[in-house]
Amino acid sequence: MNAGSVIALSGGVGGAKLVLGLSHVVPSGQLTVVANTGDDFDHLGLRICPDIDTVIYTLADLANRQQGWGRAEETWTFMQVLRDLGGDEWFNLGDGDLALHVLRTNRLNNGANLSEVTAEITKSFGIEVKILPMSDEPVSTMVETPEGMLAFQHYFVREHCEPVVTGFDFKGIEDAKPNPALIPVLAYKTDAIIIAPSNPFVSVDPILSVPGLRDMLRQCGAPIIAVSPIVGGDAIKGPAAKMLVEMGLQSSALEIARHYQGFIDALVIDEKDADLAPAILAMGIEACVAPTVMKDLDDRIQLAKVTLELASRLNGGLAR
Amino acid sequence: MNAGSVIALSGGVGGAKLVLGLSHVVPSGQLTVVANTGDDFDHLGLRICPDIDTVIYTLADLANRQQGWGRAEETWTFMQVLRDLGGDEWFNLGDGDLALHVLRTNRLNNGANLSEVTAEITKSFGIEVKILPMSDEPVSTMVETPEGMLAFQHYFVREHCEPVVTGFDFKGIEDAKPNPALIPVLAYKTDAIIIAPSNPFVSVDPILSVPGLRDMLRQCGAPIIAVSPIVGGDAIKGPAAKMLVEMGLQSSALEIARHYQGFIDALVIDEKDADLAPAILAMGIEACVAPTVMKDLDDRIQLAKVTLELASRLNGGLAR
Repeated sequence: MNAGSVIALSGGVGGAKLVLGLSHVVPSGQLTVVANTGDDFDHLGLRICPDIDTVIYTLADLANRQQGWGRAEETWTFMQVLRDLGGDEWFNLGDGDLALHVLRTNRLNNGANLSEVTAEITKSFGIEVKILPMSDEPVSTMVETPEGMLAFQHYFVREHCEPVVTGFDFKGIEDAKPNPALIPVLAYKTDAIIIAPSNPFVSVDPILSVPGLRDMLRQCGAPIIAVSPIVGGDAIKGPAAKMLVEMGLQSSALEIARHYQGFIDALVIDEKDADLAPAILAMGIEACVAPTVMKDLDDRIQLAKVTLELASRLNGGLAR
Repeated sequence: MNAGSVIALSGGVGGAKLVLGLSHVVPSGQLTVVANTGDDFDHLGLRICPDIDTVIYTLADLANRQQGWGRAEETWTFMQVLRDLGGDEWFNLGDGDLALHVLRTNRLNNGANLSEVTAEITKSFGIEVKILPMSDEPVSTMVETPEGMLAFQHYFVREHCEPVVTGFDFKGIEDAKPNPALIPVLAYKTDAIIIAPSNPFVSVDPILSVPGLRDMLRQCGAPIIAVSPIVGGDAIKGPAAKMLVEMGLQSSALEIARHYQGFIDALVIDEKDADLAPAILAMGIEACVAPTVMKDLDDRIQLAKVTLELASRLNGGLAR
């Protein structure tokens, strides 16, 4: 049934989990990840791409699962010396992780674009999934707070998501173009577009805000399926629930449906949220109830299968 | 007797040893090191300054004495991952060492000059010795070999000093200016200018080739004393002896005297080379015989005292 390609839109941790599940189910070479780059930033002169790196480390089985970022079996000598030298220490960089940042920065400074560098790194790690930065142009997610705008990593890491969020701005988005490598992928038969259970505001919206990207995805005709990052009213990880509340919205899978209304065909919600299915259906969105909390590899694979079976069903001619 | 300042010209390992000895003898704030920057190069987009760093690590008691470069108690995770990623691995960068390179590169890219960055790093490590890069303009020592010119670190590290050396070129030297911070140092009473036992061709000559620097040192009137890096016909460390032979010269302390003739007032030679003293004196250079092999801190301090006592004697009105 899965003769076509599958495209997943992903942020960091939660998204990467589902991407890993999909990589076990989708035939080799047919899975493409469009990764959020709104989190990317320059730190100590190094270009850091947190979401791309989390996807890479997760697929290469190198991710530090406790931390939710960086590499497992890491050492921290760089940070210790950086502290002695009075350097900026709010953003932790492991010694092994640094190799990736130094190589990438050097390649970018020598004229390569982020797609090329990402493809090189992905290949070095033996990853067969195609990981595409949403755009090669830099986009910076800014978080609006009562005290002013904060660059995303300042909000997320330095301020531990503590400031109240009143809005978002994707700096540079008007000049960003969708990753050109998406065009041949979309020209091929696409079976499914999966929005991984990533933060809708800061992981998925930057991707969908790249001018033209939303339409490209919609126009390819494949069913678009989101997996709710909100389960039982809370986020598995990260500030999605807190953001929803601060934005005056409900922290509920129903709000996720509302957020993606007009773009998605179906929403996968957790069994805990089964009672929300009728309201989601009433919005014109197929609701699919399944276990969505991914604790181990088997959970990731099962959820991946759920999304692909749902796509297959929607492709089969179900009324949309 | 040592009321004035002391200036030491230094390359890496051997030079740093004597600088450490001097730092124990010269009153605080009165020792200035003019460091060779001809070895500096860009690697993986990072600015590496091997001689400055060796002097810093030696003075901060952080140097790896077995290796002769880098930090003691280092970890190597960065290099392991760099290898996995297919990065250039011929130049080893320890995880802690990297903090210095990343910080320096970032400061330089943000408009600071090498003197400013070196002063900041020196201060962070609590070092009271003033370390001056010979120039803030980049100079690159090139090694001429029958197979063509090699950048110094390529010759020294990548090619393990194996190619035959036929000459040297200091790329950029004509545009280099002496470190301006030398002017106030020289305007103050200078008791001694010490040429540390560093490689004459690739550690000291780049310094003395910065246009104007040689004359500035000569004109300040302080005695100029070199310590021979050649002991009993061989170098304690590094390719100095091999280079002398390949250049058609003798690997002898006598050749060191000839190399610096017209510039130095005195040469400190090892006890093993005592028989060369008359020939050195005949060149118009004071010869001072002393133990010059520095195995421990006490040796370093003793040799520093020898150079300063010699300077004191020369300052005392001995015919030059």
